[in-house]
Amino acid sequence: MIIKKKNTWFKMLFEWRGSVLPQLLPRLLLLLLFSFSIVYFKPFLIEKNLHINPAVFTLFGIALAIFLGFRNNVSYDRFWEGRKLWGALLNDTRSLARQSITLVEDKEYDAKRDNFINLLTAFVYSLKHQLRHTNPDYDLDRLLPKETAEQLKNAHYKPIVLLRELGIWVKNAKAEGKIDSMAQLAFEENLNKLSDIVGGCERIASTPIPYTYSVLLHRTVYIYCFMLPFGFVETMGWITPFVIVFIAYTFVALEAIADELEDPFGLQPNDLALDAMSQMIENTLLELNNKKMLPVEKPKDYFIT
Amino acid sequence: MIIKKKNTWFKMLFEWRGSVLPQLLPRLLLLLLFSFSIVYFKPFLIEKNLHINPAVFTLFGIALAIFLGFRNNVSYDRFWEGRKLWGALLNDTRSLARQSITLVEDKEYDAKRDNFINLLTAFVYSLKHQLRHTNPDYDLDRLLPKETAEQLKNAHYKPIVLLRELGIWVKNAKAEGKIDSMAQLAFEENLNKLSDIVGGCERIASTPIPYTYSVLLHRTVYIYCFMLPFGFVETMGWITPFVIVFIAYTFVALEAIADELEDPFGLQPNDLALDAMSQMIENTLLELNNKKMLPVEKPKDYFIT
Amino acid sequence: MIIKKKNTWFKMLFEWRGSVLPQLLPRLLLLLLFSFSIVYFKPFLIEKNLHINPAVFTLFGIALAIFLGFRNNVSYDRFWEGRKLWGALLNDTRSLARQSITLVEDKEYDAKRDNFINLLTAFVYSLKHQLRHTNPDYDLDRLLPKETAEQLKNAHYKPIVLLRELGIWVKNAKAEGKIDSMAQLAFEENLNKLSDIVGGCERIASTPIPYTYSVLLHRTVYIYCFMLPFGFVETMGWITPFVIVFIAYTFVALEAIADELEDPFGLQPNDLALDAMSQMIENTLLELNNKKMLPVEKPKDYFIT
Amino acid sequence: MIIKKKNTWFKMLFEWRGSVLPQLLPRLLLLLLFSFSIVYFKPFLIEKNLHINPAVFTLFGIALAIFLGFRNNVSYDRFWEGRKLWGALLNDTRSLARQSITLVEDKEYDAKRDNFINLLTAFVYSLKHQLRHTNPDYDLDRLLPKETAEQLKNAHYKPIVLLRELGIWVKNAKAEGKIDSMAQLAFEENLNKLSDIVGGCERIASTPIPYTYSVLLHRTVYIYCFMLPFGFVETMGWITPFVIVFIAYTFVALEAIADELEDPFGLQPNDLALDAMSQMIENTLLELNNKKMLPVEKPKDYFIT
Amino acid sequence: MIIKKKNTWFKMLFEWRGSVLPQLLPRLLLLLLFSFSIVYFKPFLIEKNLHINPAVFTLFGIALAIFLGFRNNVSYDRFWEGRKLWGALLNDTRSLARQSITLVEDKEYDAKRDNFINLLTAFVYSLKHQLRHTNPDYDLDRLLPKETAEQLKNAHYKPIVLLRELGIWVKNAKAEGKIDSMAQLAFEENLNKLSDIVGGCERIASTPIPYTYSVLLHRTVYIYCFMLPFGFVETMGWITPFVIVFIAYTFVALEAIADELEDPFGLQPNDLALDAMSQMIENTLLELNNKKMLPVEKPKDYFIT
Repeated sequence: MIIKKKNTWFKMLFEWRGSVLPQLLPRLLLLLLFSFSIVYFKPFLIEKNLHINPAVFTLFGIALAIFLGFRNNVSYDRFWEGRKLWGALLNDTRSLARQSITLVEDKEYDAKRDNFINLLTAFVYSLKHQLRHTNPDYDLDRLLPKETAEQLKNAHYKPIVLLRELGIWVKNAKAEGKIDSMAQLAFEENLNKLSDIVGGCERIASTPIPYTYSVLLHRTVYIYCFMLPFGFVETMGWITPFVIVFIAYTFVALEAIADELEDPFGLQPNDLALDAMSQMIENTLLELNNKKMLPVEKPKDYFIT
Repeated sequence: MIIKKKNTWFKMLFEWRGSVLPQLLPRLLLLLLFSFSIVYFKPFLIEKNLHINPAVFTLFGIALAIFLGFRNNVSYDRFWEGRKLWGALLNDTRSLARQSITLVEDKEYDAKRDNFINLLTAFVYSLKHQLRHTNPDYDLDRLLPKETAEQLKNAHYKPIVLLRELGIWVKNAKAEGKIDSMAQLAFEENLNKLSDIVGGCERIASTPIPYTYSVLLHRTVYIYCFMLPFGFVETMGWITPFVIVFIAYTFVALEAIADELEDPFGLQPNDLALDAMSQMIENTLLELNNKKMLPVEKPKDYFIT
Repeated sequence: MIIKKKNTWFKMLFEWRGSVLPQLLPRLLLLLLFSFSIVYFKPFLIEKNLHINPAVFTLFGIALAIFLGFRNNVSYDRFWEGRKLWGALLNDTRSLARQSITLVEDKEYDAKRDNFINLLTAFVYSLKHQLRHTNPDYDLDRLLPKETAEQLKNAHYKPIVLLRELGIWVKNAKAEGKIDSMAQLAFEENLNKLSDIVGGCERIASTPIPYTYSVLLHRTVYIYCFMLPFGFVETMGWITPFVIVFIAYTFVALEAIADELEDPFGLQPNDLALDAMSQMIENTLLELNNKKMLPVEKPKDYFIT
Repeated sequence: MIIKKKNTWFKMLFEWRGSVLPQLLPRLLLLLLFSFSIVYFKPFLIEKNLHINPAVFTLFGIALAIFLGFRNNVSYDRFWEGRKLWGALLNDTRSLARQSITLVEDKEYDAKRDNFINLLTAFVYSLKHQLRHTNPDYDLDRLLPKETAEQLKNAHYKPIVLLRELGIWVKNAKAEGKIDSMAQLAFEENLNKLSDIVGGCERIASTPIPYTYSVLLHRTVYIYCFMLPFGFVETMGWITPFVIVFIAYTFVALEAIADELEDPFGLQPNDLALDAMSQMIENTLLELNNKKMLPVEKPKDYFIT
Repeated sequence: MIIKKKNTWFKMLFEWRGSVLPQLLPRLLLLLLFSFSIVYFKPFLIEKNLHINPAVFTLFGIALAIFLGFRNNVSYDRFWEGRKLWGALLNDTRSLARQSITLVEDKEYDAKRDNFINLLTAFVYSLKHQLRHTNPDYDLDRLLPKETAEQLKNAHYKPIVLLRELGIWVKNAKAEGKIDSMAQLAFEENLNKLSDIVGGCERIASTPIPYTYSVLLHRTVYIYCFMLPFGFVETMGWITPFVIVFIAYTFVALEAIADELEDPFGLQPNDLALDAMSQMIENTLLELNNKKMLPVEKPKDYFIT
């Protein structure tokens, strides 16, 4: 889900759509209560000299900035690489569909071409289902001949098996004399690109940021936040808890967003809208093949990529 | 619009062309008034101990620097990737136009070659119109045969349909024996590149930076700025509001520029000059094809890319 | 080993799986004792004016941030490049396996195709063994004809020799008239890519980050940490050692993780799971070739990429 | 101009070659005078409480660091991309020259090959002249047949027209039966790369960093520097102006260098030495074609790339 | 020279191998003496108010961090790009050697194939010698036929002339009917890649980081370090010089390493081990061609890439 209609700068301050705040609220309330208790026990803390020099937080800040900046950049890169892969998927399926029209010599090849484009569309959907661990049966059934659909349901790496089927389609076209060796090579090149896309998506999905990083950052952020009251209670009064919670909010929200974007193929609010993208690819392939496009309903205040 | 004539270092301090300041002025004035009222109520605030330790802003600074730096880099990368895609569009259309001259064997092919180059030009314009959601009818009518133009007006993904037409032109040239399989492949390769360019532009246009980021940064910047007076009112006098507004200006202007560049295909002052670029591509293709170039009027104190 | 099942935010604070803490514990305990002794000798230090201005640590922080940030980014890039190379290995072996089915004309070529795919699988395993300095004999024996296996055991750059064998397989297929020049070229292109992958892995494995960097960073981190007590003992009491050890922990843990990721092909907890990846490639090639896949046991609370 | 002979660390402190200092001197002197007047009016400022809390400059520092770091990186990237494009120009012209020797079958083709290599050389020089807005007539006249030279002088996008001529040379070679379709394709591929290089250079030359960025950074740097005396006059005496001018020097020099590198094809001291590079390309092509190289004079204490 | 055997964390603190410390020692001693004299003249400085507010160093820190971080990243990128180019050299020479076996049809072509592989090896060595400005005669004599060797000794761009010879070898193979057009193209593609590698190495070797950057950074680092005593002498006693020298050490060492890595093809301790890499390429090509590999002696406590 990608939100489209931007508010004015003022309303944007109170924006809730797609926000990570709800999941963070309990933790921030805990920190608020903790800070209040620290303010309450201030005389006792001063007596025991349980005070942290604010300069300490500046030093900590170095580690925190490196961790958060790194985590943030890496997560966004993963998100954007995922988006690029699905963009490349769009480009390459379009190119293959175009080539099935312009490289195949026979004019009476329409039915077989429809098969080819259906295989391409099924490839896109089965990649989506594999990445989201959802059931592809509905899409396979509606797009493929019954036999192929059944065979695929048993396959483990479905998109790869579909690539083989696409390659066999090209092989048959050559055997029937509809294309020559050069054209086969042109198809092969784009099939290789699709193979790279599948592997790229699998790589992002199967290899998260090394877990130790996440743990270390998580620990640093939270311990840092819960140490803050000890550093500022002496110089600020009852305003302390609110200021601290707001600082903490920026840090933990940054971590939470990075955590969401890390796996861009998931189903959280800020993840990639694979459903809409699959449907869009299906539609552009249909149009290229002079078929009627499927109806798409537009969401109201956000748009789906 | 890209400003060209640079001022001297001194005059540049008062530069207004392309500035984001006008849209920010009301907010900055609000902050100025707010700061003055804080200075006015200083004794009351001191009495109530409503003071923020300046060290707090240094801690905040970490989050702010990460957010702003990230937002800024990502927005500029999108701007520059958009520019690169349009640069690649220039390169590939030039290459295709050159190939329509050097790879096609027949010397009497001039009229058909004009068609090809017009299809290329129409491709460029229809991409521009798609990205800006403007009406391509005028350009389609002047560049394409009537029938093709009408067919395209009903198409949803116009540049992609035009790519198919370009591929069919090549297919026909091969069918007529003017080019061989190898040459067709050379054309195909560049058509694939154009397909990648369309997809790349669509990707940038349809997938903004995750909205939660924008909201979180926006919130942090503004709350930070409105908290500043509480931190500095004690140590500085009536000079405080001016200093604070200048600090705030650098932060909110940075956010505003990033927001403009995020969608480089828009119509804001700092966006890419797609009009001028389309016209430039048309002209260079005309020159390659030994045709008279269209007149271009040069702007006075800025230039258009 | 890549940990999968994430804990709640609270339990994650006490996460031990894959942690670098155990190896750091002795050093941190040493620092704790050292800090306590500094607190104990506080009166003496004050008398001798053996105090370090905390601002000094902020200056140091610049160098520390550059070093740690740089080290961290470079190490992660090496890890991720290693992952990408193994991802490309998956893509290219799949493409080659597909091409051995769709580009070879003869239908009675199944036995020879099995050879080809076994060569590919042996290539993957021998690369893994070369990177880890482990013994490839078991995998060579089970995948290759006896003669080829013996010949390979004596080879120094085994994956490269296997690439030559793959090329010879293609050459023979052409000599037997099963593929034409174009198809051979398509195979060659993917073999070149495999050659690039081998070289890329060798590059990462054989060229660590310049050693002087590691030494300089290491020295700066540890001297910095052991200087910290002199800076904070005056303003904080017995709480000093704990705060300092926690700061030190974030810095030395960051260095330790970077050190682990620097060589992503090793056997430390956060390194790439080459075993699982090799097995996965074998399985996907088997499925492509319509063979029965090998059984894979799934780990319980982490997953292996 | 790129300076080669490095001084010792001590002499390097007083290095003037290629420096941006001369152009900055008047501004820095102005700041020096301004700072002295602030020191002089110190009692008055203290009375009126016209003091700026030094912590303010730390906050400013965040914006300044983001701006300067960003500007610096982007400018250097443009410089380095420009250098890479000219490096690719060298590589591709060498490859084309080599192919005109090794792909053309006829041994008696020497005169025509000389034409081809002269076209390549003219392509390089006309790109240089286009980027620097200088007159290419001298180079066109000495390298091209009279007719072609005249035709080119009227062309607007000269390098692109020369690419067409190179393509026509290849077309003719094929028509004469000296090369086959495959070889033509090999030439075409490198011509496409040259087209990409031209477009890449045009992109850098025609699209500067968005002007608003430059203005905002410029404004921030100078206002920041002129605010500095108000922050430090109280704690430091007559040493203040010198310290402030040195701080200011580092910031404004960083901005000035970035400004120079932004357009790497210009004629400022730190720009790319396109003259020397063009001559070097001409020489390496001459050597490849077994011709005598042109004499090159070596500069004494700097070298030209 | 790349050091391999890592010490324990403790011994690593006293590591001297490959260190830049020796060359920095005199400068650091000078700074130590200077700092001591400042401590000695402390009463005089306090009387004259020759004091620098420590906050000044934080502001400076911004410029210093940008400069050092930038210099460091750019230098390392140059080092790593140099390494990648030599990695690609390995990959492409291996691919070419493999193709000389698998694409050439004649089985009795062994002697000519040896020539080809020797040309490849000579190409690698002559590139190494060109980058290091060393004498290639020994390697040319042992690898090439006498005539070719003599011809090359007079050539200016030796690797490029060798590429031409490689191309001519392929041309002859085609003229003799041993390879077809397709195979020639496959060779050509890899020869183009070698041309790119030569140009890439020349680019790094001939274009250092703009000299003004180096000077500005150098000046900032050293003036900063010599200003430090004025800032800390008041708050710290006789411990000041030692602390300052340690801070200075981290900064100047960072600059010194960056300076070494900037030219990765040089002969300083942290530069690339081109000797070992050339020998390794020769060996892997020998093995591919079923020849006996040259003996390689392994260094004891560091390894050479």
